[in-house]
Amino acid sequence: MVESNDSTIHAVDPRSGEILEPGYQPGSAADVDRAANAAAQAFRPYRQLDAKARAEFLDAVADGLTGIAEEIVAIVGAETGIAEPRIRGELGRTTNQLRLFAGVVRDGSYTGVRIETALPDRTPLPRPDLRQHKIPLGPVAVFGASNFPLAFSVAGGDTASALAAGCPVVVKAHPSHPGTSELVAGVITRTAADLGLPAGVFSMVHGGVEVGTALVQHPAIKAVGFTGSRAGGLALLAVANARPTPIPVYAEMSSINPVVLLPGALAERGSTIGQGFVGSLTTGVGQLCTNPGLVFAVDSPALQDFLDGAADAVQDSAAAPMLSAGICAAYDAGVQALREHPAVEEIATGADDQSLSAAGVTHLFTTTAEAFSGDPALSAEVFGASSLIVRVPDAALLPELLESLEGQLTATIHLAETDPTLTEEDLAAANELLPILQEKVGRIVVNGWPTGVDVGTAMVHGGPFPATSDGRSTSVGTLAIDRFLRPLAYQDVPSTLLPPDVR
Amino acid sequence: MVESNDSTIHAVDPRSGEILEPGYQPGSAADVDRAANAAAQAFRPYRQLDAKARAEFLDAVADGLTGIAEEIVAIVGAETGIAEPRIRGELGRTTNQLRLFAGVVRDGSYTGVRIETALPDRTPLPRPDLRQHKIPLGPVAVFGASNFPLAFSVAGGDTASALAAGCPVVVKAHPSHPGTSELVAGVITRTAADLGLPAGVFSMVHGGVEVGTALVQHPAIKAVGFTGSRAGGLALLAVANARPTPIPVYAEMSSINPVVLLPGALAERGSTIGQGFVGSLTTGVGQLCTNPGLVFAVDSPALQDFLDGAADAVQDSAAAPMLSAGICAAYDAGVQALREHPAVEEIATGADDQSLSAAGVTHLFTTTAEAFSGDPALSAEVFGASSLIVRVPDAALLPELLESLEGQLTATIHLAETDPTLTEEDLAAANELLPILQEKVGRIVVNGWPTGVDVGTAMVHGGPFPATSDGRSTSVGTLAIDRFLRPLAYQDVPSTLLPPDVR
Repeated sequence: MVESNDSTIHAVDPRSGEILEPGYQPGSAADVDRAANAAAQAFRPYRQLDAKARAEFLDAVADGLTGIAEEIVAIVGAETGIAEPRIRGELGRTTNQLRLFAGVVRDGSYTGVRIETALPDRTPLPRPDLRQHKIPLGPVAVFGASNFPLAFSVAGGDTASALAAGCPVVVKAHPSHPGTSELVAGVITRTAADLGLPAGVFSMVHGGVEVGTALVQHPAIKAVGFTGSRAGGLALLAVANARPTPIPVYAEMSSINPVVLLPGALAERGSTIGQGFVGSLTTGVGQLCTNPGLVFAVDSPALQDFLDGAADAVQDSAAAPMLSAGICAAYDAGVQALREHPAVEEIATGADDQSLSAAGVTHLFTTTAEAFSGDPALSAEVFGASSLIVRVPDAALLPELLESLEGQLTATIHLAETDPTLTEEDLAAANELLPILQEKVGRIVVNGWPTGVDVGTAMVHGGPFPATSDGRSTSVGTLAIDRFLRPLAYQDVPSTLLPPDVR
Repeated sequence: MVESNDSTIHAVDPRSGEILEPGYQPGSAADVDRAANAAAQAFRPYRQLDAKARAEFLDAVADGLTGIAEEIVAIVGAETGIAEPRIRGELGRTTNQLRLFAGVVRDGSYTGVRIETALPDRTPLPRPDLRQHKIPLGPVAVFGASNFPLAFSVAGGDTASALAAGCPVVVKAHPSHPGTSELVAGVITRTAADLGLPAGVFSMVHGGVEVGTALVQHPAIKAVGFTGSRAGGLALLAVANARPTPIPVYAEMSSINPVVLLPGALAERGSTIGQGFVGSLTTGVGQLCTNPGLVFAVDSPALQDFLDGAADAVQDSAAAPMLSAGICAAYDAGVQALREHPAVEEIATGADDQSLSAAGVTHLFTTTAEAFSGDPALSAEVFGASSLIVRVPDAALLPELLESLEGQLTATIHLAETDPTLTEEDLAAANELLPILQEKVGRIVVNGWPTGVDVGTAMVHGGPFPATSDGRSTSVGTLAIDRFLRPLAYQDVPSTLLPPDVR
């Protein structure tokens, strides 16, 4: 239940610790009910809009966001401490994503039309005229994420794909960037009004767990999109499953994104891999879903090159503000647990910065394959720029180590690629690992890094539980629209009654 | 938990009440564990088989079933009381369905390949090579259905689509037709052995709720296919959701399949519609998921033609054996409740047959729109050949009546089709109802009947909860394979490591 609540939500600048004004009122039970009912009211007219109008809406939201880029950059920086170039990059990603889904809507093939015309003379029974397409599920509740205040929040991928599918959206803003959320929601709301769309096509409420729970419980809500912690995702899943009418929850939750370093790759370019690894590890102060938190490195003479390259890069890495004091405290606790683990050694630490209120410091640890196998705690996610390198005495142990992992968003393999003999050996080893990784993850990367999730038609940002609550989907890329659709068949329906795409 | 259990499972001939020999032992906990683990062992080699080999397996199972058609006809008749022509029809449907999925596997487009080649010069960031396809989820637990001992049971649609997807299958046989299940399972097991497939690609266990629960709880099982009662489906869904790693449950559960009779259709051919309606109602002694259990008929001078036509056909309908004494008792109780309802009138009753142990008698009831709206009990499913006709005083009330319904597999509308004026009026009315039905059901039928679910590429046998536990899917038709797949992306993976379809 949403209780009436006087605890106004304030963002905190994680660089300075300053409490930012203004405050935002958490939604009441009545606010949630109003938003969800308005979405239900808007559903039919919105889904029946022609594709062109829906695509224009998405494009216009993208234009609107671009139009207030400077305002967005300023408030995201203050609320999250994210550096300006990354904010601009994330804004570009967000508007590109909206335009990408506008293109999906215009293209129309996402409705998956299948047509079987009548066969009146078929035996033993005639075949009726059958036409199938996919239709939207209904209003979607979207939860803003802490780590992508734009691309996975109010106008992010869940919202873009749901609106593209024809589903109204009610966003629960993330409490750590309420001002950013207001600014972006204002753009969507004004755009909808300017285009004469039904008001309930988009709404936003502020709030915490109670507001989120009330939203997922609301009978008008037909699906949920969430990016965040495992605890948060599982809580929403339980709420959704306990409804009289259960609904799908697409929660992208937790992943440590294992990286496998094969001997040939280490021999060929160990130090370079070490530097590239730390570059990926420290992107976004390590607060990315695809952060490489676990490395299996085959023990070999060249392993030291990798370790040295990585350690040097870690030592050169500057501290940077984490997204919030809470995330920083959880990160520090995770790091402390690794430091205190008897079988774990810290091999490098990045610079600290006492001037920051929530400083994220890079940490690099090593352990043995034996210790890793014996302790599930060592494969827990530490959300931030910390990674654990497992020294694997023999490549033959890799299959068992990989089999022991939970579902992941990504897995990465580094192979030799220059020396023919080394390449052949690494390819043979990779060939054995590939079937295991296929069954564990949503995306397999070779000779690259898992961070940097390209937004296009072939991307999968998903994976088996607990990487997500529903591994049958992706939250990034055009296939994300499929999460909010279901198939419907028409049998002998006269063409005047049929929707245009199946006519 | 599966307890060791001496209660041997015997089928009962519903025509005579005779207990049939032999008995079958319910699976023990060890049997379930063995079957699920064997499926897990078989998963990788089976999913890596080339498409041709997997398609051959499905075709060979179809051949094997055809080869023992006479044995099948005899045992299905004894165990279920289904009349011989319908058994032969169902066998043909089952083998056609296996062959249809063999074709889907050969065609290969079900893996949904999406390829984005590298754009090294793209700004601001280069695009990696990205390739996406769908891979199977893993071993699937399939629950045999009481009402389709062939087409929705051991070698039915769930099994065919799961095997086509590359998922091993463990079937829990329905206890009312254990001998049929053994016979069919034998064909699949021998075929797998003959083709040199891994033994665990298919297994079957007998048993009741405990065995089914243990199977769904088993960590090796990755998805569930079920056709049966709402209580049964919801119980399995709860078990699956309570697992440490939740899995998808595709339960096709309950539906009353509303039929709307518009005034023009009644005026044009009321009596014919009445006869067609009873033909659909009595198909399979009413024990079909798509049985038309609810009719909204607009009150008009011609309504009586429909009622008379239907009542005559009901009175002419013979009693026939229901599938089991339990189903018959539940049906009789449902009928009795309608009879005792103060606002319900029984307008026709079919012939009874005291010589049958579990006789299904046709019943036709009417009520008013007002009574229907006021009592949710009147929209409860009565599984069998009973239907409730709601007299709707004004077509303007139809939207509200339809909005009040739960999710359904199908909805049917009858329209005038000869007289231009009547047709225009009915089309206008249907045009208003269509958006409501789109949001309620998985299939919309015009001027036909919901029974007779064509197995092809455009069929949807699914629908919003509680028609199914997962409205994003269909259990009939080629799209059913998608239930057992998830997307996987490859980023910069060398082509020698890539699976053939994304190379």
